[in-house]
Amino acid sequence: MDVFNQLVQHSKKISHFNHLAAICGWDQAAVMPAGGAQARSEAMAQLSVHIHSLHTQPQLAEWFDKAQNEPLDDEQKATLRELKRHWQQANVLPEALVQAKSLAGSKCEHAWRTQRKNNDWIGFEKNWAEVVTLSQQEAQIRADATGLTPYDAMLDLYEPGTTTQSLDAVFSDVKTWLPTLIDQVIEKQRAEEIIMPTGHYPAEKQKALGLEVMKLLQFDFEHGRLDESVHPFCGGVPTDVRITTRYNESEFIQSLMGIVHETGHARYEQGLPKHLAGTPAGEARSMGIHESQSLFFEMQMGRSEPFIEHLATLAARYFSGSEDKVFAQANFQKIYTRAEKGFIRVDADELTYPAHVILRYEIERDLINGHIKHTDVPELWDHKMQAYLGLSTQGNNQNGCMQDIHWTDGAFGYFPSYTLGAMYAAQFMAAMKKTVDVDATIRSGDLSPIFTWLADNIWRKGSLLTTDELVKQATGDVLNAQYFQEHLKNRYL
Amino acid sequence: MDVFNQLVQHSKKISHFNHLAAICGWDQAAVMPAGGAQARSEAMAQLSVHIHSLHTQPQLAEWFDKAQNEPLDDEQKATLRELKRHWQQANVLPEALVQAKSLAGSKCEHAWRTQRKNNDWIGFEKNWAEVVTLSQQEAQIRADATGLTPYDAMLDLYEPGTTTQSLDAVFSDVKTWLPTLIDQVIEKQRAEEIIMPTGHYPAEKQKALGLEVMKLLQFDFEHGRLDESVHPFCGGVPTDVRITTRYNESEFIQSLMGIVHETGHARYEQGLPKHLAGTPAGEARSMGIHESQSLFFEMQMGRSEPFIEHLATLAARYFSGSEDKVFAQANFQKIYTRAEKGFIRVDADELTYPAHVILRYEIERDLINGHIKHTDVPELWDHKMQAYLGLSTQGNNQNGCMQDIHWTDGAFGYFPSYTLGAMYAAQFMAAMKKTVDVDATIRSGDLSPIFTWLADNIWRKGSLLTTDELVKQATGDVLNAQYFQEHLKNRYL
Repeated sequence: MDVFNQLVQHSKKISHFNHLAAICGWDQAAVMPAGGAQARSEAMAQLSVHIHSLHTQPQLAEWFDKAQNEPLDDEQKATLRELKRHWQQANVLPEALVQAKSLAGSKCEHAWRTQRKNNDWIGFEKNWAEVVTLSQQEAQIRADATGLTPYDAMLDLYEPGTTTQSLDAVFSDVKTWLPTLIDQVIEKQRAEEIIMPTGHYPAEKQKALGLEVMKLLQFDFEHGRLDESVHPFCGGVPTDVRITTRYNESEFIQSLMGIVHETGHARYEQGLPKHLAGTPAGEARSMGIHESQSLFFEMQMGRSEPFIEHLATLAARYFSGSEDKVFAQANFQKIYTRAEKGFIRVDADELTYPAHVILRYEIERDLINGHIKHTDVPELWDHKMQAYLGLSTQGNNQNGCMQDIHWTDGAFGYFPSYTLGAMYAAQFMAAMKKTVDVDATIRSGDLSPIFTWLADNIWRKGSLLTTDELVKQATGDVLNAQYFQEHLKNRYL
Repeated sequence: MDVFNQLVQHSKKISHFNHLAAICGWDQAAVMPAGGAQARSEAMAQLSVHIHSLHTQPQLAEWFDKAQNEPLDDEQKATLRELKRHWQQANVLPEALVQAKSLAGSKCEHAWRTQRKNNDWIGFEKNWAEVVTLSQQEAQIRADATGLTPYDAMLDLYEPGTTTQSLDAVFSDVKTWLPTLIDQVIEKQRAEEIIMPTGHYPAEKQKALGLEVMKLLQFDFEHGRLDESVHPFCGGVPTDVRITTRYNESEFIQSLMGIVHETGHARYEQGLPKHLAGTPAGEARSMGIHESQSLFFEMQMGRSEPFIEHLATLAARYFSGSEDKVFAQANFQKIYTRAEKGFIRVDADELTYPAHVILRYEIERDLINGHIKHTDVPELWDHKMQAYLGLSTQGNNQNGCMQDIHWTDGAFGYFPSYTLGAMYAAQFMAAMKKTVDVDATIRSGDLSPIFTWLADNIWRKGSLLTTDELVKQATGDVLNAQYFQEHLKNRYL
């Protein structure tokens, strides 16, 4: 076990530097004054170079060879598997490609910020061509190293073990029922009367309300904080998880549920296995499983009737006055379950969101596998938006294929995580309900049994299991979109 | 200039990691939840090891040899001088001694937190013996390397160029007039009536007031912030200076002037030469010069009549109500210039503070040079306190030689900086008054001419000049305690 232990020590060393990167990254987003940006980004770049050099030290190849022959228990084997996966991912790409992609991505993203506003596809396409080419090269190299197809090799970065085959099966099933379901729900909601908040909601009060909801969700304030940033996120490290939100003082609806979402991410981080801290086995399983926790909090639990009742009661305590009808439980429920077809993924509701993701998945899969050209994307996008949501993006690329930052940076393979997360969340809830009376638990105000289930089945597993094993052990079933479909029907029909 | 440039690049690399250390250090003190401490201190320790390894890379010795023979301009020569000084300081000590001292210091400091409360000299003395021995070893090694005496070699870490000889001269002069002056002032102030604030002063309002004072002091909020921490400090990096204060809601006097003090440190940092950023030549000259800027703000400018008038007016705007007499300019002046003999250095006023420092200087000088034993310290302390301030600390070591953290950590040589700072500040003010009508400038509310003088004569010089050169160029005189004496007499008699 000597060499295995050397690998673990080396991993802990890397994790210390990752810790500093996470805290300084949070600082950059949440508190740093604008004038600090240049020096900070130089310092962060230097840190990245250092972390990369630790990941690629030449002696590691030999260490991995030797460690494989050492007598290891199951947990150590899983740790070695994850250590090796990270090491391979960091080492497979030639340095020149990493740099070229980073440069092309920065250039494309920088110009995109203006081009999107101007709906300038022609300008965007020129920069993006390079990002796509370099991403295809990356995918091919990763494919050669892993024996996967190029797109699956990219998927593996975010969702290890997930394949085009499984996604095709799941998503094509969703496509058979989702468009119809969306239409039915929108029709059903047409006559609903919703009273939206119209008052002034000071940020300070919204923060106090948010903190109370975090308490209800048993966020551990000894190991984390709530702050503000333009783009809400969950950062920091497991012993010190930093979540952020943004406050719009003309409404409180978004930041309130945003906090519930980020608290889901945070509790996963806070619940990771402490004895594995500093090794990848002690980290979150995947982007999809991470999102399953935030969406479990936000969608499964957060939009359930008893939880909405808590939110309505708490919000009323802070804000009710002249507009008491806003804070009626039924009205809150309507606000938080309103379905609408729209162009923009980040504004989409629970019901229409998967359509946005499936569209992106189908396009990026074919693009990375070289079956389509990047110039085909606007037309394909328009075509698919019409098919899935009945909206055309013809000549409206700023609200079509140019809307997301992911592709400008070359983060192909990331999008499926969002909808995988929603599906896992539904599947976890269905499994949990076999042993926990979830609604009664939420109603009681002590949500511990829910968190105990999540901790036992997901949080404390870290990355010891593969995603498939994790889901199977927790739910008795592999990924199955059926649970998600049933959840949507129950809630929306 | 090739090798010189390599040295500069290497220095910039180190400064990037120092940047991360500074920001994470600020985070630790100002925002980190308690539960994050363990993992953070491990990450910070790892970073220290890395920074140390950069400082001690073997090729540097050769680089310094070569760079010395390259054609360099004056600024480059000064940069090389400072680079070499830092390099020598980092390399002269054997690793084992650094570690032993760090361990002994941590152990001593940790126990001291309880021992001080319990007035447990016997317990403290046992741990401290080790710290003193290791500090003496450190001083001897540094002395051998520099040709200085052991204590001068320690002084050189904080006040490069300052010697026992010059300090002895300056401080023995102060001792001839300070005790008498203190007695005279206390006698004069005896009949004064001071109205202390007795209301409730919410932290939030104190912060708003503090921010307004920082604006008056032209703190650059694009490159810095004000936050809270238990022990106020000025941290961060020159492009992003983080100052902190603490609020006591039963008074606002302390935090208000504390903010003025830290703003002095901050403006020095913000005003350092940008083109030298990342090299020691672009850093603050010394601890004493740093303190001269905070004390220039807090004492020279901050307690001047026109500035006190601003403070009183601003504070009244936030807090006046039932206790208007508190906010009279004359009352504020009395509050902020009250002299009192006390045991505790950090609570001491402008007038008595030097007595605390001189006492410590004389003891640590003799201790590090091996002329006294650490067990002699309590008696010496008592003896000197009686001589300088007429107070006995017999049997009261918790308020005597055990009161400061500095010695528990082995930071011998640091204390003189405080009083050097006060003296430099007085000397700078006297020089400034030759060309700037300081009182009228402050009264006008636009303090720019004052800051222009400080920027031109101190801030923008970084460490290009030695301390002596800096003071000479700025004031036409080397360090001269006369200015400080005159300042005290003018203000207090």
